[in-house]
Amino acid sequence: MTGRDGGAPIAPIDPSPIVILVRPQLADNIGSVARAMANGGLFHLRLVAPRDGWPQDRAWRMASGADRILEAATVYDDVPSAIADLHHVMATCPRPRHVVKPVMTARGAAMELREICTRGLKTGILFGPERAGLDNDDMACADALVRYPLNPAFMSLNLSQAVMVMAYEWWMAIDGSPPRELMTNETHVATKGELENFLTHLIAELDSCGFLRNLPKRPGMVRNIRHLFQRGEVTEQELRTLHGVVAELAHGRRQNGRIET
Amino acid sequence: MTGRDGGAPIAPIDPSPIVILVRPQLADNIGSVARAMANGGLFHLRLVAPRDGWPQDRAWRMASGADRILEAATVYDDVPSAIADLHHVMATCPRPRHVVKPVMTARGAAMELREICTRGLKTGILFGPERAGLDNDDMACADALVRYPLNPAFMSLNLSQAVMVMAYEWWMAIDGSPPRELMTNETHVATKGELENFLTHLIAELDSCGFLRNLPKRPGMVRNIRHLFQRGEVTEQELRTLHGVVAELAHGRRQNGRIET
Repeated sequence: MTGRDGGAPIAPIDPSPIVILVRPQLADNIGSVARAMANGGLFHLRLVAPRDGWPQDRAWRMASGADRILEAATVYDDVPSAIADLHHVMATCPRPRHVVKPVMTARGAAMELREICTRGLKTGILFGPERAGLDNDDMACADALVRYPLNPAFMSLNLSQAVMVMAYEWWMAIDGSPPRELMTNETHVATKGELENFLTHLIAELDSCGFLRNLPKRPGMVRNIRHLFQRGEVTEQELRTLHGVVAELAHGRRQNGRIET
Repeated sequence: MTGRDGGAPIAPIDPSPIVILVRPQLADNIGSVARAMANGGLFHLRLVAPRDGWPQDRAWRMASGADRILEAATVYDDVPSAIADLHHVMATCPRPRHVVKPVMTARGAAMELREICTRGLKTGILFGPERAGLDNDDMACADALVRYPLNPAFMSLNLSQAVMVMAYEWWMAIDGSPPRELMTNETHVATKGELENFLTHLIAELDSCGFLRNLPKRPGMVRNIRHLFQRGEVTEQELRTLHGVVAELAHGRRQNGRIET
């Protein structure tokens, strides 16, 4: 076995749903699944009848450090024994037929799993084998089905990609990141006063060099320049750079004597 | 080259953002990226200086039929030439530093890209090389950065998984699936009248067999049975099955003569 030390910590957020791979075929995929689980904060893995047995070196090679998830994985003979201690089970399946069951999106399922886990109940998500997916008996063990809204013209979803989407939605169900923010690091967004200082500086130099000499057009040109700089949430640091740019351009011009001031 | 015929159609939804892989290292990943793109309805792929050249057989082997995306992929020497015809570019990066730029979640970015594409503008999303990610010059070419909210304790995100999350959010930005629905196929959720018919049948048989013989407890027991069946959105077909179950159990009991009726 390779690289079995270290790796992502188990279960920083608990309780979290148990990922249950039903009859997985490729050890590579099991490793990629562990990596995707760690990305999204899922840490408990169960394997039902893995085709090539368990453990498998190749899984560790694909896990990119999510070793502890693989080390803690447990193996079961069938779905009923893998879910016997769970209170709520969801089953992922692309195209269920002749089934009477609640069907959820990945997003809806993640939010519902958060709620159920918060009540202290143990939950699990079933993922079927690479080619066939879950069979009808597997689905009959689940409280609800999860069907991803994805391109119906191309339904071939890799097993670890399926787990990635679910793990991502699990994380997103509590994430509070704003959809858009301006990252400014050491500096800050300029105040209108700081921006006005720069615009005053710029316009004075543009008057000085003659760029604004057409007096009837001058108000409109000044306004266009103002619009441009108002649009971009300029930072204080960028304004200092722009002050320098204008000063140096004007200084070079004066030095070269191309325009009298 | 293998399997270059057929596969997912190009661009059923257009305009859609162009996926731009910057200095990708592994052809396997390029193939997995194409598959993930097809899953989420992204169909235009550009490659900037792929390390091992292009095309590469291994990419087609990993694409699972998303061949047309690989066949139509174009190769560029550097980021500026790969984005020269685009109007709006986003750059994915896990931990930008010393950068002043809008930062978006994948969800926020997908919604904004939908809006921009709807205005007829060409958009692109930059994904960096497997190990290092995008460098500072790459990021400087972008209008905004995209940072996925994922487990900060395990940031190692596979390239094709990064594309999968973005492609999934691109698809979700227009998807109208309800987060939860009951799939009933050929049957329908039972009306309260259909449910009442069954409960009347059941309670009559329970009275008949003596299960409800404790008269002081009878109202509470009947109410508990009513609560149980009201909870599950029973279908009309399931009620017919339950009618049969009750009738057969009662019939068997009468046949065996264990309880006189």
